[in-house]
Amino acid sequence: MEYQTPQFFHVMQYADAADGDTIDMVSGNPDWEPPAAIREGLHEYADSDAECFQYPPSDGLADLREEIANRRNVDPDRVIVTNGTGEANYLGMAAGLGDDRGDGCVLIDPVYPYYPGKASMLGGETRLVAANHDGSLDTDATCAAIDDDTGVVVLNTPNNPTGAVYDLDAVKPVVETAADHDAVVVVDEVYDHFDFTGDFESALTLNADNVILTSGVSKSMAITGFRVGYAIFPSALVDAAKTRHMLVNVTTSRPAQRAVSAAYRATDPDYYAAARDRLRSRIETFTTALNAAGAEYTTPDGAFYVLARFDDFPGTMANVKTLIDEAGVAGMPGATFGTAREEWIRFALVTPRVEAAAERLSDYFG
Amino acid sequence: MEYQTPQFFHVMQYADAADGDTIDMVSGNPDWEPPAAIREGLHEYADSDAECFQYPPSDGLADLREEIANRRNVDPDRVIVTNGTGEANYLGMAAGLGDDRGDGCVLIDPVYPYYPGKASMLGGETRLVAANHDGSLDTDATCAAIDDDTGVVVLNTPNNPTGAVYDLDAVKPVVETAADHDAVVVVDEVYDHFDFTGDFESALTLNADNVILTSGVSKSMAITGFRVGYAIFPSALVDAAKTRHMLVNVTTSRPAQRAVSAAYRATDPDYYAAARDRLRSRIETFTTALNAAGAEYTTPDGAFYVLARFDDFPGTMANVKTLIDEAGVAGMPGATFGTAREEWIRFALVTPRVEAAAERLSDYFG
Repeated sequence: MEYQTPQFFHVMQYADAADGDTIDMVSGNPDWEPPAAIREGLHEYADSDAECFQYPPSDGLADLREEIANRRNVDPDRVIVTNGTGEANYLGMAAGLGDDRGDGCVLIDPVYPYYPGKASMLGGETRLVAANHDGSLDTDATCAAIDDDTGVVVLNTPNNPTGAVYDLDAVKPVVETAADHDAVVVVDEVYDHFDFTGDFESALTLNADNVILTSGVSKSMAITGFRVGYAIFPSALVDAAKTRHMLVNVTTSRPAQRAVSAAYRATDPDYYAAARDRLRSRIETFTTALNAAGAEYTTPDGAFYVLARFDDFPGTMANVKTLIDEAGVAGMPGATFGTAREEWIRFALVTPRVEAAAERLSDYFG
Repeated sequence: MEYQTPQFFHVMQYADAADGDTIDMVSGNPDWEPPAAIREGLHEYADSDAECFQYPPSDGLADLREEIANRRNVDPDRVIVTNGTGEANYLGMAAGLGDDRGDGCVLIDPVYPYYPGKASMLGGETRLVAANHDGSLDTDATCAAIDDDTGVVVLNTPNNPTGAVYDLDAVKPVVETAADHDAVVVVDEVYDHFDFTGDFESALTLNADNVILTSGVSKSMAITGFRVGYAIFPSALVDAAKTRHMLVNVTTSRPAQRAVSAAYRATDPDYYAAARDRLRSRIETFTTALNAAGAEYTTPDGAFYVLARFDDFPGTMANVKTLIDEAGVAGMPGATFGTAREEWIRFALVTPRVEAAAERLSDYFG
């Protein structure tokens, strides 16, 4: 089972062991407060009757599923509350690769490394299709990569690591081509609350019966450790996915579900807007410094990562370590995300020390 | 994907919809209070720094893994904290069925229905071996069922539904025969705190490098909804299992892990002893009534289920419904648990109304 994610740990362990102070721009953990109702919801749950500590319904607490269904404008029966978006993607990819649709898995390069890992675990064969230079979906190339052996296509928008927000007009032909070849399309929208364009549209609006939508609150509510995500399946596929969810996990942890349900109801849009504003400011600070350092870089339309390429300093693991040792900033080597951005380094902007990191990079490369 | 567990829901839905009052003896949810430290641990966690709400290590919080490792006398590196014992069993069975060991899965009949469900999901072929009449392991028959096609054997002790506690001398030849055929043995000990004999020994004490031990706190701490379990793998198999755990779930929900870690440290043996005493009393009450009703029944050595067979009243789904309608007691049809106990009905003793249920059954059949 080939699997690249330990590179995250490798970099973090190296940074932890470094002599000097290192600013961690490796991991994708939000560094801000969760909605107040998360803490309140946990307190309330902790005092509830003992029977509330027992199995919730396998597919999730009814009020949580209904809240998600209302927000996404779908039938609650199509919603499965999962152990984070990670499990949602696993269930979605298993639906594509497990049912004689084909064992081909089309992924977009640069690629979030868990996707090829999951494909391999599920017996799938990954085919990488390069994104356009600006990170947008190369619709023609993606459609051309889909054939009768394809079981699943996985898209991620807003995108980690490119920051691209896909135009739905670019997604639609991919969904249609996949349907022609009896393949499903998993669309991972876990960064849906981090859209800086105001134009993001969910793939759910395509109303396609081969789209599996995955998302979660790990990023939007700043609780990656709670493991609350969800998958929205087409009606024809949801029962098999519920069975798999039950056989793997039985159900999703109830304290976390209860806190998230409370936070959905109590949290107003200002909370999410404040997180976007915070990130916008960090993006501005960071890209200004990259500019001063003479780097090529992405200005994300969504999510919270910046890719940068420095002259004569390709984003290899060796150079990432050099940057930790000599500049005190830890990023991720581009090769972690497939082959299309091997020259680049990914910086996660979920640290309050973005300004200091920007200064360090600008000093080091300037 | 063949899967029998919806029968649980089917019975519970029928019972909920029944006109009269029904005593639920279907589900395996403890009806007593969790250790006080569970509530306290959640409160404490709810007030912790926001960074404590982010990803814990994929294989579990370090202090929790160490606590489990100390209790089980193994190296912490062999421990994976899982989303309940359900995920632990999934990981264990995947290790046996996924690695060219063979796709045969040997299960003991009567069987917990999730096991054949998981085997089927993982591409395995189930072979059922009947337990002895008293529920004990038929060592010769089990060993005879293991061949070069066998990838995994799953044992459950203390056993659901028979209440048998396996003698380790009966388990050892099965482990050795499996090793001879390059098969692993998953031993599910989730009821390890509900041993009424005082003689239960964990299969870990065999020190075999093909035994995968699974357990959890769902039953022992009366928190089935928290989803905290664990798997202890042989060193040679643990890395692949950690990878699968990461690719499926990333990690186990942190609020639940934190509460369980607190409860492990703060809960003294009296808590578990009180639960056993409560169950001993219920077993006595219930089996006395079954005796008065002229039924054949099991007196469990462990876990918290009683199997009963009534004259001219086989444990079919139709008769289970009749019992709900006419006696106000809901049990599970024996056919849910394979073929060996089709005549029987399983009653879960995790309800404070065991005495009333006993009276109703004794009135109905007496």
